[in-house]
Amino acid sequence: MGEHTRPRRSLWMFGAESEEPSYQQRAARAAQLSQQLGVELTAPRIPPADALDLRAPRVTPPDHLAAFCFTSTWERAYHSYGSERSIYGVRGDYPNPPDVVAHPRAEAEVEAVLSWCSDKGYCAIPYGGGSSVVGGVTPPDGAGAIVTIALDELDQVLEVDEISRAALIQAGAFGPHLEDQLRPRGYTLRHFPQSFSGSTLGGWIATRSGGHYATNHTHIDEFVETVRMLTPAGWWEARRLPGSGAGPDPNRLAIGSEGILGIITSAWMRIQARPRFRATGGIRFPTWEAGYEATRHIAQARLWPANLRLLDPALAAGGAGLDGTQAVLIVGFESAELPQRALLEQAVGIARDNGGIIPEDELLADDGTGQPTGRSGAAGAWRNAFIPSNPGLTAGLGLIGGTFETAITWDRWPAFDAAVREAARDVLVQSCGGGTVNCRFTHVYTDGPAPYYTFAGAYRDGSDPAAVLAEIKTGVSDAVMAAGGTITHHHAVGRQHRPWYDTERPEPFALALRAAKKALDPAGVLNPGVLIDP
Amino acid sequence: MGEHTRPRRSLWMFGAESEEPSYQQRAARAAQLSQQLGVELTAPRIPPADALDLRAPRVTPPDHLAAFCFTSTWERAYHSYGSERSIYGVRGDYPNPPDVVAHPRAEAEVEAVLSWCSDKGYCAIPYGGGSSVVGGVTPPDGAGAIVTIALDELDQVLEVDEISRAALIQAGAFGPHLEDQLRPRGYTLRHFPQSFSGSTLGGWIATRSGGHYATNHTHIDEFVETVRMLTPAGWWEARRLPGSGAGPDPNRLAIGSEGILGIITSAWMRIQARPRFRATGGIRFPTWEAGYEATRHIAQARLWPANLRLLDPALAAGGAGLDGTQAVLIVGFESAELPQRALLEQAVGIARDNGGIIPEDELLADDGTGQPTGRSGAAGAWRNAFIPSNPGLTAGLGLIGGTFETAITWDRWPAFDAAVREAARDVLVQSCGGGTVNCRFTHVYTDGPAPYYTFAGAYRDGSDPAAVLAEIKTGVSDAVMAAGGTITHHHAVGRQHRPWYDTERPEPFALALRAAKKALDPAGVLNPGVLIDP
Repeated sequence: MGEHTRPRRSLWMFGAESEEPSYQQRAARAAQLSQQLGVELTAPRIPPADALDLRAPRVTPPDHLAAFCFTSTWERAYHSYGSERSIYGVRGDYPNPPDVVAHPRAEAEVEAVLSWCSDKGYCAIPYGGGSSVVGGVTPPDGAGAIVTIALDELDQVLEVDEISRAALIQAGAFGPHLEDQLRPRGYTLRHFPQSFSGSTLGGWIATRSGGHYATNHTHIDEFVETVRMLTPAGWWEARRLPGSGAGPDPNRLAIGSEGILGIITSAWMRIQARPRFRATGGIRFPTWEAGYEATRHIAQARLWPANLRLLDPALAAGGAGLDGTQAVLIVGFESAELPQRALLEQAVGIARDNGGIIPEDELLADDGTGQPTGRSGAAGAWRNAFIPSNPGLTAGLGLIGGTFETAITWDRWPAFDAAVREAARDVLVQSCGGGTVNCRFTHVYTDGPAPYYTFAGAYRDGSDPAAVLAEIKTGVSDAVMAAGGTITHHHAVGRQHRPWYDTERPEPFALALRAAKKALDPAGVLNPGVLIDP
Repeated sequence: MGEHTRPRRSLWMFGAESEEPSYQQRAARAAQLSQQLGVELTAPRIPPADALDLRAPRVTPPDHLAAFCFTSTWERAYHSYGSERSIYGVRGDYPNPPDVVAHPRAEAEVEAVLSWCSDKGYCAIPYGGGSSVVGGVTPPDGAGAIVTIALDELDQVLEVDEISRAALIQAGAFGPHLEDQLRPRGYTLRHFPQSFSGSTLGGWIATRSGGHYATNHTHIDEFVETVRMLTPAGWWEARRLPGSGAGPDPNRLAIGSEGILGIITSAWMRIQARPRFRATGGIRFPTWEAGYEATRHIAQARLWPANLRLLDPALAAGGAGLDGTQAVLIVGFESAELPQRALLEQAVGIARDNGGIIPEDELLADDGTGQPTGRSGAAGAWRNAFIPSNPGLTAGLGLIGGTFETAITWDRWPAFDAAVREAARDVLVQSCGGGTVNCRFTHVYTDGPAPYYTFAGAYRDGSDPAAVLAEIKTGVSDAVMAAGGTITHHHAVGRQHRPWYDTERPEPFALALRAAKKALDPAGVLNPGVLIDP
């Protein structure tokens, strides 16, 4: 069996193999951090793929699948994980790799490999970019033979309908490649999750990814005209329609199905002309409370800014150079057709009425020529807060960090924030001897915010980082659920969020979803254990 | 068994019994129309409720349900129909009335009556305002005993969360009563389907009603925070959340379920401050084609006007006094917080770039004082086109008319419109010897319009109006489906749209929906035959 020939992504960090820092670079970073934090940190030696000794494949693809099904060590190691690779890949820890990794090059090959799995009762795990932070593509333990079906060969924009502003796009297209194909014609999908460079259209749809727009059309859901999904019972594909009221929306049951009902192979997506006009400003607030109250009023004015992102004082200090007491709200409007400055002024007016501070000359507006007017404010430095540093540099250094995100109605938000921060601090003290918790809003609705929390701590010598992380996640997830939030606003459920998801979703809906899965996938092969048990 | 004591709605027209025109008024109208159309029309004598001789109830509610379950002739006649009453009620034709009509006054009574139906295998038909135009609340033939469960006693706004701008509203609240309860606090749901006065929140949710907003948040779907629905397997109710990405959205499977999965008893709905600022204009176009091209460009500029309604030249002539060649586009913006004139000017700019004509002084903007500035244009008369004349005046006069509505992507729209109009004219010639077909856009998306067609003809002496109407509906529905549309953008599926819905929805989705229903409603009692067969 040959090798699949795409450029490799990293086995142990988010990014391409070619972007991995060297051992020397990581060791230098460890020394620097040791001094900075007063803790001894050591850069690990990360085992290369050819040194790994994986469990032998338990099944062999039949001849008619051999041309696109692989069993090489690298393929199986890579597809063992989503983003857990940053913990396990660092240590060369691959106890449960898939037995076979398929890279179908056409829908007929997706059909062929899924039929094989259904007939034999092998687990079939659809795999997009592998950026899941919730174990959504991780093989389940004790489930028998596992076939991971990677969609990366199906990565083309097949058709652009310029009149309707829609495009037929294959599910395996990664973010940058998808935009590269739309850009020459002047279009964009404008879906930019944080994982953009390492995630795919199919993954976004399967997980209800949250994207670029902070208000109004926050999730990929809104941009889906229709999904094409292969189920063991046949193709699931509704008509291309701008809207319909014919029964419950079939697309809405496919969107968020996380691979348990079928394999998404393509979708007609609503695209847009590329924006030419922009208007943006960073507004300071004396307190976190003043910041979120103003954010609420802007959201409820239904101006629908593309950007409406609030950083708490700690993040604003780190990202925008503020003093640690002030919050900062980034408001931005954009359009392909029309100047946006008037909308920005309306939003800023509401912010000022609620205690916001921004000098007039810090309202940045682009008049369509690509030349911004106004000058960048002190708060303009906020952009850096969203540019991630090289993730490989801290991998396995004894630092632990993560994020959790949710949504909550405004009436409960202040008490929610207090309770969740307290729970997070408590569990960080218990697990790590202390740590930090920060919050920003990634998306905002008329009826509530979607807060995104970042935490960091150090794990103790000899402790298992995965266990420490799980302990922290459990503590904060319990708090989020107890305070009335959702276990996920846009990171999906996967395997990790299952205990909380099970309490969140209405029990009759679980009955309905289980029955739907059983009807479509009677052998129960599709991503078992994700979202629901048989 | 006593009588249910709410003010009665009409047995034979859309509206209250108190609004019914007298026989004399209808006879005068018939004489007037006879002269005008050159056809002999006769006002029928409509049998009063106490003259009706219905099939005796086949079941008797047990004692514990007797206080809210009724078997009177009026109750059973009224709940025999949705809007088909305008054909059958006129003739006193009630071959298949429900056996019992329940008006539960509390959720416990909804539970009690649904349990009774499940245990005995009686059909349970949830009934809101009875405005369905697709047979969505009509008892099925040959299905055994039928219990219609009317929600009209559950009509309260139970809670208003002013901070989150959301309200908990019972499903049986009719539009005006719902708004009456929100208005004193300064809020509104702003969902105004054409059936507003005769339909309920629960009905809107169950049928994915299309509302006030012509763009962006077009359906009730977008305003639902969470639905509370009783299934035979228990209460289906997700958390109140502004957004979530936890699996497929449970609300989206309840929304549009047309009573086959459960009985919606209440919902948390997103409400808004009442608008104070408005800006509107009626823009003329030399042709229908120029009008819809401009409409497309405005929609694709993502300005999200509240109103964006295009009338074809025939409607524009009738409603706005234009010359029969010009189309008219009504564009309107509204806000509780902010002046809207600048947005209107941007939309008008796009319209003018695409051949639209509107003098500067016909841009109407309200500065928040309630005083519009600018003067009403010739096109301002369009509003009259949306005010229905008294429906009872033409009931049973030998005239036949109806509507059908759909959605289609822009790329296919011109050919679609041509094909659908041709099919409609053909079937009107065949069925009525001729007639009229007109079109307007009720809702518009970036990727396509939602056209709404109105047709009218006369049926021949002795022919069955229901059969003629069915013949026309079949002809136009076949054409809509063949040309790529949806069988319904916001009128729902019910029983009448089933044949086309069955070809429209993906077969695996039908498997999933059927399995979900079976899991929730194993006895198959909930609205059987609507949406799907067992």
